[in-house]
Amino acid sequence: MNITVQDVIDQLPAAGRLESTVDRLATGTGQAAVRGIAVSFIASYEAIREAASLGANLFISHEGVFYRHQEGGKGAGGHSRVQQVKERFIESAGMTIYRYHDHPHMASPDLITRGLLRALDWERHEHKYVGAAAVVTLPEARRGCDIAFHVKSRLHLPYLRAAGSLESACQTIGIAVGYRGGGEIAIPLYEKEHVDLLLAGEGPEWETPEYVRDAAAQGCGRSFLLLGHAASEAPGMKLLSEMIEERFPGIPVHFINTPTPLQIM
Amino acid sequence: MNITVQDVIDQLPAAGRLESTVDRLATGTGQAAVRGIAVSFIASYEAIREAASLGANLFISHEGVFYRHQEGGKGAGGHSRVQQVKERFIESAGMTIYRYHDHPHMASPDLITRGLLRALDWERHEHKYVGAAAVVTLPEARRGCDIAFHVKSRLHLPYLRAAGSLESACQTIGIAVGYRGGGEIAIPLYEKEHVDLLLAGEGPEWETPEYVRDAAAQGCGRSFLLLGHAASEAPGMKLLSEMIEERFPGIPVHFINTPTPLQIM
Repeated sequence: MNITVQDVIDQLPAAGRLESTVDRLATGTGQAAVRGIAVSFIASYEAIREAASLGANLFISHEGVFYRHQEGGKGAGGHSRVQQVKERFIESAGMTIYRYHDHPHMASPDLITRGLLRALDWERHEHKYVGAAAVVTLPEARRGCDIAFHVKSRLHLPYLRAAGSLESACQTIGIAVGYRGGGEIAIPLYEKEHVDLLLAGEGPEWETPEYVRDAAAQGCGRSFLLLGHAASEAPGMKLLSEMIEERFPGIPVHFINTPTPLQIM
Repeated sequence: MNITVQDVIDQLPAAGRLESTVDRLATGTGQAAVRGIAVSFIASYEAIREAASLGANLFISHEGVFYRHQEGGKGAGGHSRVQQVKERFIESAGMTIYRYHDHPHMASPDLITRGLLRALDWERHEHKYVGAAAVVTLPEARRGCDIAFHVKSRLHLPYLRAAGSLESACQTIGIAVGYRGGGEIAIPLYEKEHVDLLLAGEGPEWETPEYVRDAAAQGCGRSFLLLGHAASEAPGMKLLSEMIEERFPGIPVHFINTPTPLQIM
């Protein structure tokens, strides 16, 4: 019996009925029979080509295919030639692409955050989920720079961006994946949850980094590490790919790594 | 005769009446007599202390003092201890802080963009202002990586982030300061203004960088350089400080450099 795209979607961790969501088929149809599944942080042009060459015809992407969060809005990729070439390739490859963003974040616990905790080997430590973040208590305090080294090494990152006092002892660690590094989420974690160090994906450069700089200037040792949006969310999509593999043992499932295109110069 | 804070504000380049603006006194009053003026990208705790030690009592800051664009909103720094300590210092120093953000951007040409053009020594090249950006035509094409080196060297940057094809020849360069690096502004610059390379301050990591990565994968050599929000806008505030100095020759004016708190690890 054929497994359809809709059969797979129906088995993805979900958060019930959401008022509004970006999760939807970006291309293709739910009726297509699935021959292989690719899972990734983002359906880049190269990732879709790789998926096609591996025989996959369903691509589950955390972020949007056409360069903005709310697809179909004005401006942005609307009618760009880069988008047109991409659309033509997707059509010729018969690739169905499903954007899977809000449901994994709204699931309990947040699947994407859980993936990062697992990748950092911190699920075994005391931890709790607090709103859009998680808070981990390490068995003993470590310097911010040592934690940065651990994060880079576990996630195979070429670099990360850091602010604040990296020599201070950190034991309570906040984790805010994706674009959750802004002041509105981060500052209450420092002030109410007493995190010493926050790991975030991405966030406005002059909110949390400036808060942490001011805190350090006031003699209050707080640290902030920006992993990058992709680095913070890819482990959650890797976890998802393993869950799909387990649920559909007859279908090849491939996790496709799409590290940030941003290199340091 | 005393020069008051309001006298100085009245002489700043303005864009007429704005429907809504974040430009306002964050602390202090317009009636205070000005003894010295500090100008900066951001009124960090350290920058305010430096301004006070230099005898300034008016601080003109491009970005917000309390870690978010719309001050006074919920969450963020609302009642953080870091904000309270900062507020107490500002009060004890008698520092009046004026946020000057929308007017310089809406002025014609955008004062902040003009400052960056000048700092890059590109005002002498053919250039035009297009919406929220500027487009410069270099006298001859240069490789993206050579332009990156020029930018780092002129702006004294420890690093920048780059995406796309850095070996390609670039002659038409887009400039989008501050948080204007997103797809909605950037992609039309590549597609309609035919820029080969875009310099931006900050922007969402998976919009323009992914567009440029897809373009490169399609064999279309486009480059993108992220300077950092502070690095892209500080030169405009430096230009402003010189304009104020010229207008008020009797008052000491200090430009205070506040490079990004984000270091690479």
